[in-house]
Formats: sequence, C-alpha cells, structure tokens
Amino acid sequence: MTKETDIASIGKYGLLDLLNNDLKFKKSSSIIGRQEDAVVVSDNLVENRVISSSLLLEGVNFDLIYTPLKHLGYKAVIDAISKIVAMNAVPSQVIINIGVSKRFVVEDLEEIKLGVFLASETYQLDVLQIDVNTSYTGLTVATTGIGFVDEGFWASRSNAANTDLICVSGDFGAAYMGLQLLEREKSIYASQIKDGVKTDFQPDFSGKEYLLERQLKPEARLDIIKLLREKSIKPTSMIEVKDGLSSALMQLCKASNTGCRIYEDKIPIDYQTAIMAEEFSMNITTIALNGGDDYELLFTVPLAKYEDISSVEGIRLIGHISEDKFGMLLETRDGVELQLKAQGFVDKE
Amino acid sequence: MTKETDIASIGKYGLLDLLNNDLKFKKSSSIIGRQEDAVVVSDNLVENRVISSSLLLEGVNFDLIYTPLKHLGYKAVIDAISKIVAMNAVPSQVIINIGVSKRFVVEDLEEIKLGVFLASETYQLDVLQIDVNTSYTGLTVATTGIGFVDEGFWASRSNAANTDLICVSGDFGAAYMGLQLLEREKSIYASQIKDGVKTDFQPDFSGKEYLLERQLKPEARLDIIKLLREKSIKPTSMIEVKDGLSSALMQLCKASNTGCRIYEDKIPIDYQTAIMAEEFSMNITTIALNGGDDYELLFTVPLAKYEDISSVEGIRLIGHISEDKFGMLLETRDGVELQLKAQGFVDKE
Repeated sequence: MTKETDIASIGKYGLLDLLNNDLKFKKSSSIIGRQEDAVVVSDNLVENRVISSSLLLEGVNFDLIYTPLKHLGYKAVIDAISKIVAMNAVPSQVIINIGVSKRFVVEDLEEIKLGVFLASETYQLDVLQIDVNTSYTGLTVATTGIGFVDEGFWASRSNAANTDLICVSGDFGAAYMGLQLLEREKSIYASQIKDGVKTDFQPDFSGKEYLLERQLKPEARLDIIKLLREKSIKPTSMIEVKDGLSSALMQLCKASNTGCRIYEDKIPIDYQTAIMAEEFSMNITTIALNGGDDYELLFTVPLAKYEDISSVEGIRLIGHISEDKFGMLLETRDGVELQLKAQGFVDKE
Repeated sequence: MTKETDIASIGKYGLLDLLNNDLKFKKSSSIIGRQEDAVVVSDNLVENRVISSSLLLEGVNFDLIYTPLKHLGYKAVIDAISKIVAMNAVPSQVIINIGVSKRFVVEDLEEIKLGVFLASETYQLDVLQIDVNTSYTGLTVATTGIGFVDEGFWASRSNAANTDLICVSGDFGAAYMGLQLLEREKSIYASQIKDGVKTDFQPDFSGKEYLLERQLKPEARLDIIKLLREKSIKPTSMIEVKDGLSSALMQLCKASNTGCRIYEDKIPIDYQTAIMAEEFSMNITTIALNGGDDYELLFTVPLAKYEDISSVEGIRLIGHISEDKFGMLLETRDGVELQLKAQGFVDKE
C-alpha cells in the first residue's frame, strides 16, 4: 500500500504548492499561471489574454436553502471574473458549465441563466456558452472567465517589494457575518420544523441587508481596476481576497519573499459587521482577517505613489511590505505586535 | 408556484437551445460560441484563441471503482483539448480545477497530476495551473483548455453545405463496449462479495484491451487536425463525437440547416467492438451510432476535395450532406433507408 497523507496535514496551500511548483512552461505564449488568481497567455505585443477557472460546489460554496438560483448564477460569474480583475485585467467573456441532477427542472436552469445575464450586463461581458452535464450529486457550476490586459500590465502576486504600501478595496468580514446570520436563521427554522411547531417563520434581516448582500450577491472590483488605470497607477502586486485577508496577505508575501506589517485600526470594517460580531460575541478583527468570501482586492504600490493612491476613493492603506526576515506582523490598537496566521484548508463540516 | 418542466421532456439539446439561443455577442473579440465544442476569441489578425470548458463528475463521467486516478487526470485533459481540436485548432495550455472531499489523500491528487502531466507531454501542452476546492460529495474535475488557430481557420458545426462529404476519424462504439465490459465485471465482483464468496476475482480482459483503452484512456485527434493542415484541407464544418455519432450528426445538420445520408457499411467499427457486441447480443450499428465516449471527429469537406481527403490515413467517408428537406438518412447494408434518431438526455441511473 502506498503512503497516505491526509490533506489536512499539509493544508490547502501546501497541497497547491505540491501540485503547482513543478509546472514548467515551454510555450512562448505561456506567460504566468501556477498559484496566481488566473493565467495569462500572450497573444501579441499589444494585449495579453487572461483566463480564469471557477468551480462552485453545492454545500461548500453555496447552500440552496438560502441561495436563490438567480443569485447562484450571478455569483458564478463574479467568482470567475473577480480572479481576472485580481490580475489587474478587464473581464470580457465567460463560459458556463453546469452539472445538474434530476431534482432540478428547466425553470431552475433558466433562473441560473437570469443571474448569469444580470452579471454579464453589469460587467459588460459576453456569455459565450452555457453547457450542461448530468450530475448525480450536488449542483456544480464551473465558469471560465476570459479577459484582457495591455501587454505586460497584468499584476502577479509575486512582485511586492520592501517598503511598498499595502492597499485594500472595500471592507472585510461582512460576507462571513452574512453567512453566520443565514446559518443561524436556517437552524432556527429547522429546529421549529423538527419540534412540530406550526411556524410562519420569517427571518428578520432588517438592518443587516449589507451583510446578506455581501454573502449572496458579491461583486467583482472592476471599478478599482479602472480607477487605478485612470490614475496611471500600476500595482507592483495584486491578489484576490476570498479566503480571508490574512490568507491573501500570506500568499502575497510568500510569493514575493517579503514580510509585512499591517495595522489593526486601518482594516476597513462596515458598522453592520461590527454590530453582528458583537451580537455573536466574536472578535471583529479575527473576522475581518479570516472570514472569507469578501471578493476584494489586496495590492501593493511603491511608496512613492502614496499621494496618488491616497486620493483614490474606495481604497484603504493598511500597512506596508517589509523584508522577509521581519515576518508578517499585525500591530494592534494597543500597539502590541502579533504574528499573522492563516487558516488551513478550511472545511465547514 | 412557477411552472416546472422536467428536463427530460425537452432533452439535453432542447435545454442547450434554451440556454444558448439568445446569447448576444457585443464584443468585437467574441467570434463564436453557443453550442460549439469550444469558443473562439480573436486576438489579432494573425491568430484566434480557442477556449474550452470540461466538467468531469464522479458517477457520471467516471466510476472510481475501475478508473485509476492517473487515468482520470489524463482523461480530464483529453476531454478539454478534444473540444479545441474539434474547432480545427491546436491545444496549447490547460488549467485544472479539482473538487475533492475528505476521503481523498495527497497521494490521490498526485496520481491525478501524473495523468495530467502524461497527457500534457503527449500533446505538448503547458499545464498553467492546478487549483483545488473542497467537495462534500463526489470528485469533480473542471478543466479549461486553451488553444490557437490561424485567423479564420477554425471550423464551426454550422457551415456544412449540400453535397459536402461526411468524414470521420477512428472507429465507433469501442469505448461504449469497454464501459459495458467494465460494468459487467464490476457487478460480478459485487455479487460475489454480497454472496460471501471468498474471491480472488481477477477479470480476464485479454483480447479486449482495445475496448478498455478506448474507455479508460481516450485520445484527442490532434493528429487528424495536423494531417488536414498538411494537406491544406479546410473542413467546411466539424464537431466532436462524444455523445454518439448519430447525435453529433444531428447537431451538425441542425446547426447547418441540412440533411444527410450515411451508409451503414461505411461506419468504421473495430473487430473487438463487433465481437463484444455479439457476446452482449447487441446490434453493432446501434452501438456505433449511439455508444458515446468516442472522442472522434466528424467533419465535412467539399465534394471537390474527394481525392485529397481519400488519401488521408485514418479518415473514412461515411456519406454526404443533403438538403434539409430530405432529413437524416441511414442506408442499411440491405439498401433500406432509415431515419436517424439521436438519444435524448441520457441518464445512466
């Protein structure tokens, strides 16, 4: 019997290293790939093509009890194009590939399509193809994103340099709190049904709409890419924040062979997120650092761009890149230095 | 309650029509997509980029009881690049995205990767990225294929014209018979275990290796694309044969608004397929027309290319395109005319 190594023992990123580290690119058109958010292939000397692959699996990436199929279609597109955006590129087309079992009807597929169309209108995309496969188990949506970027203008996660400013878009932890909220209401509803309580249970989400929207209808930060372009700011590195801010920072620093220092009081958090965190007795910084599904951008710019980047709306500076030997540090509101940690291969089971 | 239409009632192709017919391409770079095997995006005036999406789902596209993981990795690549080849294009890169549950270990992923690497060597591809997601249910492999073709040289399924010759690569029905063989051995094995028979059951596949290979280790017909190119033959239309020859013919004729006439005695069938069909008391022509997983090419060339195409090794002429009004006809060995029928949304349950 061959050796058996539990995936959890090396973690998701250990596994990705193992699978990607020895990929060798022989084609002149293969520009960059491996653990980047998307791959870049060269086409000519004017433009590069950027291609991303997204896989949404029922029970892991979405729960159909509280995810309308239209939202799922929307999210499938966002999940694919957000990776393109995170290469500093503009998405242009998508291909949708759905695995569907017998419990779904034609109208369900049409709902998914409506969501796909809505996202394609919002982001000015062409939907090139919608394919369907039989599935025996859960619903699966695989999306291929296609985009473009001026030759050499794509941003990898591996080029951050010492003293670079660390910038983020949006705010963090809201999508995670939205998920907690939905899970809580789901379990209340389930226990009422179990206890035979006749219920016209209607969850009250008022005042928490932002959290739900962040979880159920995420957006890709194409607006940020366009703003950076307008201001002629080319990030030195960029990465999508989807598995938590801390995890994204670690991936970026590791790929760039750098350390970093970020400041707790600079991490943008919405007030609804803060209120919910208190309601759940959770630490708000932990949530902002580790809560996933943010679909925001983390990127770096040279220190000399401080004034330019400070003037861009929707972007916050949270710290700076340091030498590798200093490690990854979080300075708390009290001025205490903590070592940043990433989560492993997070499993919701 | 909204109307609920069973998918089976409109069939897979009815569903694909519904999902794809109103896709509108607004970008100048969106060349072709919808129900084609892959999509084409233009890059410049010299070359087009061709992108395909493949989704292999456990229990539907593969059974892990008799599919070694290395073979699965190989097949995932083939499934994606075969669609690129079917656009008359040359595959150059792949992106792999795996959904994996806790029952798999690191070494399993490495086995899949070995298969991916083997295929990438065979077809001279760069593997740009291998991504991993958590799955709760079956193993899922989503593959994005990237390829290229000289500007305007791609072959759609919609340009076949009256009197065009209908050509196919390889032979048909072997992969389907391989599947029947594997399923039979699996059920013998399962029933022995169920009956408590102590068994050192070793299925005997001698003389049937070709059938197993066609099912477990399919190939993409890149060789055919290259031969056509060498002979300066540009097909008028082309489609991948994966859900059966009959189904591919129907899709091609429908997209081209034509009919066709093919000849039973011209359909290439391997002798191992014929022997197995007899063993299973199955009609060999039915199997060749409807058995899937062939990964062969069906294409058309102008009648004037008869001599050129006849000289290409590995290609057989099986009939010709006719006007739409004549329908799709199969002329049997006895000279009887039959109407061709495609299978619906085939479900193995």
